[in-house]
Amino acid sequence: MSDPRPIGVFDSGVGGLTVLREILRRSPAESTVYLGDNARAPYGTRPDAEVVAFSRECLDDLAARDVKAIVVACNTVSAVALTEHRRRYHVPILGVITPGASAAALATRTRRVGVIATPATVRSHAYFEAIKNENPAIEVYEHATPALVPLVEAGVLSGAQAETVVADALAPLLGTRDADGEFVFPLPPSARVDTLLLGCTHYPLLRTVIAEAVGEGVAIVDSATATASALAELLSINGLESPGAPPSDEPPARSPATPLAPSHRQFTTGDPVAFRRLVTRLFDSTFPEAESLDLAVSR
Amino acid sequence: MSDPRPIGVFDSGVGGLTVLREILRRSPAESTVYLGDNARAPYGTRPDAEVVAFSRECLDDLAARDVKAIVVACNTVSAVALTEHRRRYHVPILGVITPGASAAALATRTRRVGVIATPATVRSHAYFEAIKNENPAIEVYEHATPALVPLVEAGVLSGAQAETVVADALAPLLGTRDADGEFVFPLPPSARVDTLLLGCTHYPLLRTVIAEAVGEGVAIVDSATATASALAELLSINGLESPGAPPSDEPPARSPATPLAPSHRQFTTGDPVAFRRLVTRLFDSTFPEAESLDLAVSR
Repeated sequence: MSDPRPIGVFDSGVGGLTVLREILRRSPAESTVYLGDNARAPYGTRPDAEVVAFSRECLDDLAARDVKAIVVACNTVSAVALTEHRRRYHVPILGVITPGASAAALATRTRRVGVIATPATVRSHAYFEAIKNENPAIEVYEHATPALVPLVEAGVLSGAQAETVVADALAPLLGTRDADGEFVFPLPPSARVDTLLLGCTHYPLLRTVIAEAVGEGVAIVDSATATASALAELLSINGLESPGAPPSDEPPARSPATPLAPSHRQFTTGDPVAFRRLVTRLFDSTFPEAESLDLAVSR
Repeated sequence: MSDPRPIGVFDSGVGGLTVLREILRRSPAESTVYLGDNARAPYGTRPDAEVVAFSRECLDDLAARDVKAIVVACNTVSAVALTEHRRRYHVPILGVITPGASAAALATRTRRVGVIATPATVRSHAYFEAIKNENPAIEVYEHATPALVPLVEAGVLSGAQAETVVADALAPLLGTRDADGEFVFPLPPSARVDTLLLGCTHYPLLRTVIAEAVGEGVAIVDSATATASALAELLSINGLESPGAPPSDEPPARSPATPLAPSHRQFTTGDPVAFRRLVTRLFDSTFPEAESLDLAVSR
């Protein structure tokens, strides 16, 4: 069995592109359609009913493009609206929370996992629940870090400002450094985590700065990588892989001479020029030109 | 590592004893404490806030007995209050929904799973969500079968009445039989399930009748068995097994000559005589005498 149709990837904005980037790496033979609802981003501060309604309009658009699976590359929508969307569409829908939680549960040795996310995601306790479902003996420390998304959206991914903002954001979870750069833990040892889950699709763009801040003793898990792996498994298990996909036990050929070259399209409900400018700053030239999409909906 | 403390098992009534029975089979070296809140059962028709409050009082009691893990052997509480309880107690808490959903996702070949449960559990869509998290390509058909718990509570586990009630309850999901006893499917073939998940802890007591009703083509998965397996894995992974437990790759000795013989206690908030009478009718002599428990709470 195989299926040449594209994979739909949805996010409220550009954060989901970290998931798309991992999908392109992990499943290079697959075609994709990305939709960013930039005109109405961010979703994290909106009431649940709006999150459900807005994301449904976007998923209706993706479903109408005959995608074979949809990745909801947005933590807020994954936490708030996944069940409702899964009941609406017959196409398999994958969120980012369960894959990230599974990866974190596998990564921890001390059974203490920290999760950083937006306030909306932390309030939902979706990661707490998903990690406990993997192993209820894991202690889960959720911490909202609202300063990080604005940092990414401003294109500040490294340097002194990024380091300061990240260190401040992580201090309640991991402690602060002293003058010699050594960590000063205000937390009792029993509360220290050995695994940090990046529970927001923007955060992998700050991975280098975050890794520097937490030090070598803490494993960093991001749901972008985990979700791309879960998607590959989903496609394989359900016979949905592209006909151009190599058998899963072979490495992908560097230049597959196949007539079924994958295609990639990106749509934004916002200004495509501004979208392109931000995407280039965040990802260099990883992604193709964005196209404008008018959902013809109220803003 | 090992841990001689007992496992706490909680249910609103007697249904959770199907889970306890599987735990005794699967982990015979473990001690257990069962608590049935019979004085306030059933929970399925109560508002969420009451389900949370009542079950918290029971879990407070179990936690005070120094249990090493708690199994919430009640679908309603697992669906409604698990996250809140997991945030309240540091002891690992296992629900029945994720284990049952995982087992059903593994069992299905056609990726069509039927779930029968109480109205409260179906309304929560907790099984739908949990199965989709295992494999979002699985179609999940949830169906409320409110007639089955009263049947079990009345001690009617076989015979013509049980067969009729079960057949009627399953008809919307599986179809009805014609005069020759052959199934007449009112459902299109694309909607037929190949796996039926018993999403209520009472239902395993009707397993023989249900298996007869659905026929050989449908695999029956019950969350009692799946939860006992998940508990054994939880204990093993987290070093919580009883010192008397055999290594997991050896069959348990028939008569382990150990000074650490497991102990089992059962408490009910209701009338222990009535509890005992019902339990004997449902389970013969599997379980020890129940003790009365006064939670000193409002009814």
